[in-house]
Amino acid sequence: MSKRIGVVLSGCGFLDGAEIHESVITLLAIDRLGVRAVCMAPNIDQMHVIDHRSGQETSERRNVLRESARIARGEIQDIKDVGSVDLDALILPGGYGAAKNLCDFAIKGEHCHVQPEVARLMREMLKAKKPIGVICIAPAVMAKMAQEERLPIELTIGNDAKVASALKNMGIAHQDTPVDRIVVDKKHKIVSTPAYMLARRISEAAAGIEKLVSAVVEMA
Amino acid sequence: MSKRIGVVLSGCGFLDGAEIHESVITLLAIDRLGVRAVCMAPNIDQMHVIDHRSGQETSERRNVLRESARIARGEIQDIKDVGSVDLDALILPGGYGAAKNLCDFAIKGEHCHVQPEVARLMREMLKAKKPIGVICIAPAVMAKMAQEERLPIELTIGNDAKVASALKNMGIAHQDTPVDRIVVDKKHKIVSTPAYMLARRISEAAAGIEKLVSAVVEMA
Repeated sequence: MSKRIGVVLSGCGFLDGAEIHESVITLLAIDRLGVRAVCMAPNIDQMHVIDHRSGQETSERRNVLRESARIARGEIQDIKDVGSVDLDALILPGGYGAAKNLCDFAIKGEHCHVQPEVARLMREMLKAKKPIGVICIAPAVMAKMAQEERLPIELTIGNDAKVASALKNMGIAHQDTPVDRIVVDKKHKIVSTPAYMLARRISEAAAGIEKLVSAVVEMA
Repeated sequence: MSKRIGVVLSGCGFLDGAEIHESVITLLAIDRLGVRAVCMAPNIDQMHVIDHRSGQETSERRNVLRESARIARGEIQDIKDVGSVDLDALILPGGYGAAKNLCDFAIKGEHCHVQPEVARLMREMLKAKKPIGVICIAPAVMAKMAQEERLPIELTIGNDAKVASALKNMGIAHQDTPVDRIVVDKKHKIVSTPAYMLARRISEAAAGIEKLVSAVVEMA
């Protein structure tokens, strides 16, 4: 049976959910490697709903799992129903959704909390020593989990000094990294890439994400 | 200056808007060819809002331009402000949005009407002999425009007998085509590919879309 790569989505749109380009490029790279993507998301309300044309918050309410289903073409599971036993690896695309819905790093920085079901699955993956890939701002979620598990991991979120500093305060060894590169923590099987933390064009984000997916699948 | 390739989005999600994978793969292929994507959408309400997890219609209202902005990361224009003079080519990704929001083919079949600003821009592109690429179900929009302009064009929507028959009734020469192929009508500069009319995997859709984008950009 082919490897199963979990993809944790956090909505649909970079200002309040999963970054759409990063998510689709991840799914395409997984499929092109002949392995299987297993999409999932937490069944909770989004922290915000943002009008992506104006950048302004709206009064709407939207559900993370339901909006994520748009990216997954309906083939998506509630993350509470997924265990590390179902997966060979896990990847978290970025977008503000990773920092607003998968955890609250966007508001609380280094003092953030990870959504309980996301935390439970990531903890299981760490304990099973299965690889985890984190894209763009999703390393913030990974950093908090590593801090809680007392794992001194290496990561990158590109070169944003403020975000890097928050990660360092969580005990992470942060590596400044250009957009088309990845950082591989071989010991803890954690792979990261800056994507839209740095990318000015979709092809720049794709270059790093394709390397990340290859590295994660290889380690799986 | 690099070529400008218009991309007409129709929302964000395959059941009520633009097919997200097709849209992102189109944007990535455009960028990788070193030309520029110009995203646009009509500023109208969606015909439907569908819960992509359950497949059921909801009571929400969403705006096509605002939802499309999620795919375009906010860099999007109201299609009414775009003319053929601003573009070297035009591409319409698929998804039900193409058949519900760019025209009403999903309801009226061959008797559909094209949204007025979409029709105006497509008519301008046809008159300027600038290439148009249509993906998945978007050939239905193209077929109606060709019928109105009395152009006997060649197209594919894959091999769906019912949709192909509706296109033929609009005067189109339909070519059954596998998912990884394109149909090029050189005379009228129209390129089409089946994508998710046939694709069972994202990599299958990508194979045809990448060929379509290359052919469109080459003719531009």
